[in-house]
Amino acid sequence: MRKVAIVGIGQMPVREHWNSNLRDLAVCALRDAMDDAGVQSLDGLTVGNMLSGALSEQEHLGALIVDYAGLEGVEAVKIEAACGSGAAGIRMAYKAVASGLMDAVGVVGVEKLTEYSGKYSTAALATAADADYETTVGLSFVGINALLMKRYLYEYKFDKSDFAVFPVNAHQNAVHNPNAMFRHKITAQEYAKSKMIADPVNLLDSSPIADGAAAVIVVAQENLYRYPGKPVAILSCEVGTDTLSIDNRTNPLWLAGVERSAMRAFKVAGLSPQDIDLFEAHDAFSIMTALSLEASGFAEPGQAIRFALENGIDIKGRLPLNTCGGLKGRGHPVGATGVYQVVEAVKQLRREVDEHILVPDARYAMAQNIGGSGATVITTILENMSGRS
Amino acid sequence: MRKVAIVGIGQMPVREHWNSNLRDLAVCALRDAMDDAGVQSLDGLTVGNMLSGALSEQEHLGALIVDYAGLEGVEAVKIEAACGSGAAGIRMAYKAVASGLMDAVGVVGVEKLTEYSGKYSTAALATAADADYETTVGLSFVGINALLMKRYLYEYKFDKSDFAVFPVNAHQNAVHNPNAMFRHKITAQEYAKSKMIADPVNLLDSSPIADGAAAVIVVAQENLYRYPGKPVAILSCEVGTDTLSIDNRTNPLWLAGVERSAMRAFKVAGLSPQDIDLFEAHDAFSIMTALSLEASGFAEPGQAIRFALENGIDIKGRLPLNTCGGLKGRGHPVGATGVYQVVEAVKQLRREVDEHILVPDARYAMAQNIGGSGATVITTILENMSGRS
Repeated sequence: MRKVAIVGIGQMPVREHWNSNLRDLAVCALRDAMDDAGVQSLDGLTVGNMLSGALSEQEHLGALIVDYAGLEGVEAVKIEAACGSGAAGIRMAYKAVASGLMDAVGVVGVEKLTEYSGKYSTAALATAADADYETTVGLSFVGINALLMKRYLYEYKFDKSDFAVFPVNAHQNAVHNPNAMFRHKITAQEYAKSKMIADPVNLLDSSPIADGAAAVIVVAQENLYRYPGKPVAILSCEVGTDTLSIDNRTNPLWLAGVERSAMRAFKVAGLSPQDIDLFEAHDAFSIMTALSLEASGFAEPGQAIRFALENGIDIKGRLPLNTCGGLKGRGHPVGATGVYQVVEAVKQLRREVDEHILVPDARYAMAQNIGGSGATVITTILENMSGRS
Repeated sequence: MRKVAIVGIGQMPVREHWNSNLRDLAVCALRDAMDDAGVQSLDGLTVGNMLSGALSEQEHLGALIVDYAGLEGVEAVKIEAACGSGAAGIRMAYKAVASGLMDAVGVVGVEKLTEYSGKYSTAALATAADADYETTVGLSFVGINALLMKRYLYEYKFDKSDFAVFPVNAHQNAVHNPNAMFRHKITAQEYAKSKMIADPVNLLDSSPIADGAAAVIVVAQENLYRYPGKPVAILSCEVGTDTLSIDNRTNPLWLAGVERSAMRAFKVAGLSPQDIDLFEAHDAFSIMTALSLEASGFAEPGQAIRFALENGIDIKGRLPLNTCGGLKGRGHPVGATGVYQVVEAVKQLRREVDEHILVPDARYAMAQNIGGSGATVITTILENMSGRS
């Protein structure tokens, strides 16, 4: 097994891109990443995407994007794992390079969710849940997260207002990320007054849908001399799964898929939660942030909020969280999100983010991408290589 | 790189399965393959599927199917490459095992196309073409194949009736495959009188949509002692791509994606077209069979029909073609087709097909799965292992 690194990153601002279609967004992000890496060709491409068929009437994105990116004939497929599609694509590239089968593999996560009615996107996103046992009874993802949050408040005796710590932190960091969608602070008071979407999930608990594309170039560390780009090591990139429907889980407040993915990632990297210097969590809804922190081993069950308040999750805290805004502040272009998380973690380790959100001596960054309500989870652990030869 | 083999196969009959949904079909095929291999657990699963989101309102098939197959927590994703999704899944499994990252990986191709109006399936299938430059001007896949066939007849001076050789052969073989959808012979006269769909493509040029699922278990040859199942070696499984839209190709009658995929597969296997004992071609339409034979190196450009007539493509011919019925006779459950092709080739090499369609001393079988009109192509070369230690 070869050691693996990311030598190039690219991203489009997360926005409503009414003038760009899927291929435009994907090709721009990919070519930016290739330029950043200093590569002219790739051995393979994986495209992370969930809803191109449902919303843009376009499947077959692998062949489409290699063609439009000028990479004639290159092997390419689309990977779909709901909101985890992006990092699942990185996992495929990591495997191809680690194995020695390929030297340079591109990953682009792309999603186009706007230009359609909100209702249609919500229905399309619900295809990540169990069509026969969840969606048909009317459960959307807001509904699923509302059930989980209500249960959490009941089980662990927290007040709804205690969850403010997560979205307030995300927005505070997004202010300094030029690619984020919501670059304004919010307060705990605003959170408390925010419009209810599905009790107890309010508007400020919910990440926004958006359009976007982000890309990385994955290579073998033994070949780093070939690439002018600044490398960041991928120590591990591991997948865990769980039941699709939450009613099939013994304890719906314990994300077994997160636990499996994170424990595998820590094991392969030879690290533990205490070693992680910053964590890009999948805050599609505030409750997901809490459950992820717990199942990943950062906090005891039911203690994520206390962990956040006592240890600190802002840039100067013990565990800087969602330092570029997270899904809440950056926006959540579903199949692209996992790649954005890794791109942002790479920027942190390359010291290329705004000084207000820079985690000064960060060595290890972790990004966790979650599909559905925790059914597919991909945890990636990255290491700064500047101190190494 | 480790050598790789298939030790288990499973398949559901290709039918209109009105009583089974996606997960039923997939789990039955996968569990059959696991039983055949004698394995109780898997290290990973790839699901080949194109249209679950569009037609069954269900994405996220990886996590869904591992859960319902009783494979709690196992890594799983869906791979989408249009009609090439199934073999693209086999490619992923091949890479994971060859690299040493995983020991036993399952692949299940599944598709459910019926229970919906034909019009809707046709529109959903058109998402494999270029949404902005082909589909919006009204081109369905029948239309694209009609353009190619018309051009072929014009360029190479064949008569439409000459194409009968391919569907007549496919139906003749399907008679002896209990899992095939159309188990009846057709004649050249019936072909000539067949209802026109899109001039010059008639009904008997066109493979039928259907429901189905097929599965294989991929392992390392060095571990074969662990599995009671009869092994067949995967010598190569290689992907080539081309432009999505046919108008972007210098010569629309030359499938560059097929050429790339086949040449890579021959190179990795250390073989040439002359070595292949039977070929499972992607005969979604008769014209595709001709173009595949040519770009794969079996026949010169414009000579596929002559090759078929002079050398023979029936069971006793020089190149037995689509020995279990092909897409035309077996049926074409889109994302499952590539796995069916490999399952049928494995059955041939294990001498487990009906004696009427058995290619007696076959050593090398080749299966070629094509996405769209040749934009993603996966060629798999298999070898009988019974003569080896």
